[in-house]
Amino acid sequence: MNDTAPARGFPRAEYEARAERARALMTAHELDALFVTSEQHVRYFTGFDSQFWASPTRPWFVIVPREGELIAVIPEIGGQVMAQTWVTDIRTWPAPVPEDDGVTLLADVLSSLPRRFGRIGAEMGPEMVLRMPAADFLRISETIAPQAFVDGTPVLRALRGVKSPAEIDKVRHACQLTSEAFLALPEKLHVGMTEWEACRDMRVEVLRRGADNSPYMMGVAGQGGYDNIIMGPTQKIIDKGDILIIDTGTTFDGYFCDFDRNFAFGEPDDAAKRAHETVWNATQAGIDAARPGATTTDLWRAMAAVLEKAGSLGNNVGRMGHGLGMQLTEWPSNRPGDDTPLVPGMVMTIEPGMEFAPGRMMVHEENIAITEDGSELLTIRAAKEMPVVE
Amino acid sequence: MNDTAPARGFPRAEYEARAERARALMTAHELDALFVTSEQHVRYFTGFDSQFWASPTRPWFVIVPREGELIAVIPEIGGQVMAQTWVTDIRTWPAPVPEDDGVTLLADVLSSLPRRFGRIGAEMGPEMVLRMPAADFLRISETIAPQAFVDGTPVLRALRGVKSPAEIDKVRHACQLTSEAFLALPEKLHVGMTEWEACRDMRVEVLRRGADNSPYMMGVAGQGGYDNIIMGPTQKIIDKGDILIIDTGTTFDGYFCDFDRNFAFGEPDDAAKRAHETVWNATQAGIDAARPGATTTDLWRAMAAVLEKAGSLGNNVGRMGHGLGMQLTEWPSNRPGDDTPLVPGMVMTIEPGMEFAPGRMMVHEENIAITEDGSELLTIRAAKEMPVVE
Repeated sequence: MNDTAPARGFPRAEYEARAERARALMTAHELDALFVTSEQHVRYFTGFDSQFWASPTRPWFVIVPREGELIAVIPEIGGQVMAQTWVTDIRTWPAPVPEDDGVTLLADVLSSLPRRFGRIGAEMGPEMVLRMPAADFLRISETIAPQAFVDGTPVLRALRGVKSPAEIDKVRHACQLTSEAFLALPEKLHVGMTEWEACRDMRVEVLRRGADNSPYMMGVAGQGGYDNIIMGPTQKIIDKGDILIIDTGTTFDGYFCDFDRNFAFGEPDDAAKRAHETVWNATQAGIDAARPGATTTDLWRAMAAVLEKAGSLGNNVGRMGHGLGMQLTEWPSNRPGDDTPLVPGMVMTIEPGMEFAPGRMMVHEENIAITEDGSELLTIRAAKEMPVVE
Repeated sequence: MNDTAPARGFPRAEYEARAERARALMTAHELDALFVTSEQHVRYFTGFDSQFWASPTRPWFVIVPREGELIAVIPEIGGQVMAQTWVTDIRTWPAPVPEDDGVTLLADVLSSLPRRFGRIGAEMGPEMVLRMPAADFLRISETIAPQAFVDGTPVLRALRGVKSPAEIDKVRHACQLTSEAFLALPEKLHVGMTEWEACRDMRVEVLRRGADNSPYMMGVAGQGGYDNIIMGPTQKIIDKGDILIIDTGTTFDGYFCDFDRNFAFGEPDDAAKRAHETVWNATQAGIDAARPGATTTDLWRAMAAVLEKAGSLGNNVGRMGHGLGMQLTEWPSNRPGDDTPLVPGMVMTIEPGMEFAPGRMMVHEENIAITEDGSELLTIRAAKEMPVVE
């Protein structure tokens, strides 16, 4: 592997810097506090990292005041482990108590915050989910008046959209180990196996190389090209003439890679070969266009020009890549009208795709980080020609 | 393995039966429709099964009217694959379009529903998450007046709380293959490995035996007992005298098992041995108490009696088991005051735990299905004595 595994976790200074940036952004957006409920935002601000979020039973709340220290309002089961983070103000209740699952405790905390703008930013906008009962959120909204919840998305996007070097190290490591696993995979692939078996073998391969897990391991095959990129793997047997795409979101220490590779089972026909070369070239055009000052729309245009010239019939994905980090997909999107300026520290997927014949798609994807003067490729670049498996 | 892998998916009749039950419950709860946004509820009603939910970018909506057929209001990327389910009324938009991500389309559909009660049930209550921008939900709430969103949790709980035989088959299969993996695991475990390596080996073991993935694979070790059950695995090296617990939510075809096993590294001391025997006996008491007519509170009492008699110092988990199915944890909870009557078709975890000395916990868990006259053990019962690893 080109890199060694980065240290797990972050130094305290990283969390202090996040809180400082958050406070400055809150002032600019006239917020008295950020109120977060989701796995990624609780982890972003506190460092609390647990698989326990897989259980939807208990809500967890963190408040980042514009003035003052972080406050965690959490179930008792998490009190002791939250105390191992840098957070010192921890208030717990014996969850689950559906009659009042932290509602009174949380309303008290929010009501006692230093008040200047009367606005508290919550996860209310695009790509955000309020991970708590909506009925409780509405009840708290009434209780804390005249303070009001407003959409905190602009602040959360600005914060998480620009990654620190330590964050990029983790994404790079996920990208590198997954790239190596993809390079080793053809040895395991063979005509007559199922899509499911191919994805299982890839899962085992990334685990062996140090991945924590693969929340996303999509695989779909079709004669001369697949017909979608969101539904596999199934128990379908991969036949000679099939093209298999595996697209994976594999994690290391809470950070994702998100990219794909195509495999030809038997020698691909000319149309499939040309399609792969086209999406490879479009990916290269996207990578080459990525630099500070360019926008997400520029990336989209650079890729679209290559696809159109090659006769793309279009696609139904709605964009050609997106932000990447603590989640498989993050703001922004490479699409017309997005117009987000790229700045150093952004991590993006470059993901052109097209239907090149009716019912036959080809999609390709790499991951990059925006640098001071261009971009760094985080994945190991795919070969221009698909690997052929017998 | 005691069972063979059940067929994937469900026959159309299963979805028709779900919709029929939903309509009857809607009438009883005075709802004109159910409106769902989450992976599990979209899958429950439509059969649409995709890993694509890992991306938070696009909202997906399904409406189950009290009168009339299901309506899917979804991103264009999903239109073709949704058409392969039993749903025929599919309306798409070219997501992502943050300016109007399905909001207008959805509001039109909701406004044109047959109206009798003026109430639409949404995922607003305990253990539910509205998977869409909260700001959009509030905007739609205003648009559709005089129709009102109300909490649809009672209907969704009643539906999903009682599983069909085909659903239980999938949970049983996840339980069985994971039990076998746990039985094979000691061969891979050794003093000097990390918690992370032990969990990785268990992940590989369940994948080899046909699991789809393990969204939850928690492992934590400590001298004579662990001090929490939500934070591992870490890079901590497991030492002689440590007790390791691995607790896993492993899936087959979209259904979870959720149970744990304890492993002693070197001969455990008497206190740890006694603690394991106590939680084993408490589990047995819970299993023995499970039958139609008993309540979740009865299960809790049966387990608590065994723990208290053995001198438990208590625990911070807040309950001793819960429902299980499409999610790692589901309604109801085995806790005082829950008082949910058990009925045939419920699938429950039986999960007593205690701190038996300061900083030393022991937790045990099995999975059962409630039958007409008692319960069926879905897991392969753990041995009363912990396996000892050298």
